[in-house]
Amino acid sequence: MKLIGIADTTFARVDMGGAAIEELKTLGTGYKVVRYTVPGIKDLPVACKKLIEEQRCDIVIALGMPGPKDKDKNCAHEASTGIIAAQLMTNHHIMEVFVHEDEAPDAKTLDWLAKQRAREHARNAYALLLRPDVLSKNSGKGLRQGYENARPIRE
Amino acid sequence: MKLIGIADTTFARVDMGGAAIEELKTLGTGYKVVRYTVPGIKDLPVACKKLIEEQRCDIVIALGMPGPKDKDKNCAHEASTGIIAAQLMTNHHIMEVFVHEDEAPDAKTLDWLAKQRAREHARNAYALLLRPDVLSKNSGKGLRQGYENARPIRE
Amino acid sequence: MKLIGIADTTFARVDMGGAAIEELKTLGTGYKVVRYTVPGIKDLPVACKKLIEEQRCDIVIALGMPGPKDKDKNCAHEASTGIIAAQLMTNHHIMEVFVHEDEAPDAKTLDWLAKQRAREHARNAYALLLRPDVLSKNSGKGLRQGYENARPIRE
Amino acid sequence: MKLIGIADTTFARVDMGGAAIEELKTLGTGYKVVRYTVPGIKDLPVACKKLIEEQRCDIVIALGMPGPKDKDKNCAHEASTGIIAAQLMTNHHIMEVFVHEDEAPDAKTLDWLAKQRAREHARNAYALLLRPDVLSKNSGKGLRQGYENARPIRE
Amino acid sequence: MKLIGIADTTFARVDMGGAAIEELKTLGTGYKVVRYTVPGIKDLPVACKKLIEEQRCDIVIALGMPGPKDKDKNCAHEASTGIIAAQLMTNHHIMEVFVHEDEAPDAKTLDWLAKQRAREHARNAYALLLRPDVLSKNSGKGLRQGYENARPIRE
Repeated sequence: MKLIGIADTTFARVDMGGAAIEELKTLGTGYKVVRYTVPGIKDLPVACKKLIEEQRCDIVIALGMPGPKDKDKNCAHEASTGIIAAQLMTNHHIMEVFVHEDEAPDAKTLDWLAKQRAREHARNAYALLLRPDVLSKNSGKGLRQGYENARPIRE
Repeated sequence: MKLIGIADTTFARVDMGGAAIEELKTLGTGYKVVRYTVPGIKDLPVACKKLIEEQRCDIVIALGMPGPKDKDKNCAHEASTGIIAAQLMTNHHIMEVFVHEDEAPDAKTLDWLAKQRAREHARNAYALLLRPDVLSKNSGKGLRQGYENARPIRE
Repeated sequence: MKLIGIADTTFARVDMGGAAIEELKTLGTGYKVVRYTVPGIKDLPVACKKLIEEQRCDIVIALGMPGPKDKDKNCAHEASTGIIAAQLMTNHHIMEVFVHEDEAPDAKTLDWLAKQRAREHARNAYALLLRPDVLSKNSGKGLRQGYENARPIRE
Repeated sequence: MKLIGIADTTFARVDMGGAAIEELKTLGTGYKVVRYTVPGIKDLPVACKKLIEEQRCDIVIALGMPGPKDKDKNCAHEASTGIIAAQLMTNHHIMEVFVHEDEAPDAKTLDWLAKQRAREHARNAYALLLRPDVLSKNSGKGLRQGYENARPIRE
Repeated sequence: MKLIGIADTTFARVDMGGAAIEELKTLGTGYKVVRYTVPGIKDLPVACKKLIEEQRCDIVIALGMPGPKDKDKNCAHEASTGIIAAQLMTNHHIMEVFVHEDEAPDAKTLDWLAKQRAREHARNAYALLLRPDVLSKNSGKGLRQGYENARPIRE
């Protein structure tokens, strides 16, 4: 039985963790979910590492929603750097799913975008863990999470 | 008996550590506080790590007040990066509570903001350590520390 | 038998991993290729480390195509920092082959550039692994990957 | 007998290490000084770590004077990041004392500022090592090193 | 017999490694040189670490020539960060000798500057390894590598 960790925040304005879990349910069986909620994105790196090392998760999805200010962009950069370090220290993948508040023109689109990106990265996490062939055959295909895919330059 | 570390600075212009400790007292029992004061925010990462590894703290609250200049923003970035690294090296949470001098329009508001954010993050630290269910049920709710909460997009 | 890892992404719009593998085939024998496709460039650092530590690769080529926005530049910076850290943690080389979408004036040139840079760094990886003398004799020669070489100042 | 390390550079235009040592002499006894001079600030992180791990210093003061250009600011950032990492790897404090050439309007003031900041951080290092109560009672007091202190918002 | 590592690149447009080795020959005996050429500056951190850990070098000189674009500045920053990390992981000095293409007004001056800085840092490496007293007595003297020295503020 594989374990998929979901690390999310009380700071986010959308239940991104819930969306990811819903999506996982549609993909298949053979795994269990462990969810861990922390205050903000800078608390995510160690939360992910604890999910891997203390809860024995095989992969983690880290979901957050940085604000629109410069200070928020810095926080996102620091959190991302920490999430990459946590992966290198554990040899486990952590799918970072960040949606910046200024990526969408209005609240309704932001809500849609946050859930959509969470869902698509949940599919990526599932593929990395249980169906790596799905990723291999899409190498270089311009896939995006949230808004529509870019197209490969030569199809 | 749990141990909560409080790391603060002589550089800050507000007794943020004192505010955090006061708040903790209102939340319950079952823990003791260890306080460690250093000169500035760049001294906080190792101070937190020492609180965890040498004083056996279960969680640490790191409080600081970066100045308003570009140089100060850089210091805050370096300190934040170090605080995340300290968490990854110890598998313990450190709640970073930084209040930038330019986040408030005047000294009185800055004083209020610094203490308010310290208090709210003290509650977060307490919840992470002893009441993780409080965080789980607020996942994606747009919670903020200091100024008022953002609202979740769909309630 | 040496092992060369190829880590690439589904985000890229060009099959850079395929181009690298094609080029390697023209260079000689004495090695096998292990390919690992991940969603985006921020997933590359741990993918490379896993190729080295779990698949026993002797060298890895990490290929990605960051988008043109500021957010994308940040991602590339975070990925690069992680790729350097992965090298330091393993004492193995990882050839980073990133092509920014705004490095070429049009899609056709971007396609050419991405494949050309992948090919030239495949040659570098091969040289580092099996023909270090090829690099030694080109020290200080202004070699570039993709567009044409700069010239050494004194020839 | 405690050991205090002094790491300084040949790049600085003021003998900051000498000023720190002079100040230490006025503070008390019970320690010895080990001085280590390197070319520039980017050589300081490993110099400090060697002072701690190879010379058994209990604390280190790292003194440098970054130039006024953007390139110099980057160097200072890289050095600071390294000094924080060295602290986390050793669980020892390193007092960073950097004076940027553009912090003072003229050479005479720069000379004064560099020595004054070195002296005040020498007092901080001494306090961290031998008199932590001096820091505790100044928590949140707006203390500065070099120019005059900021005042606490509420006294 | 001490070992001095020389790590340089095929990207640089000047034979900086050659200049460093020539200078070392004028300084004395008691050491041997190990040279290792890699494609670009981002390959230098692990190259230096391999020289120290696999070739047993006592000190390394890392020479590179970042281009003039923003992207190149980022590469230099990432490489510098990695070189500092490599030093902290090994407790060995690595002299970073980077010459930015836009530091000189023309190719001839760039050629001179790159070689001159390589030579002066070769002297620094030699001093760190075999004559630390030469550095100690120049503490705070405003020494520069390449262009002329700044003067100490008070002589």
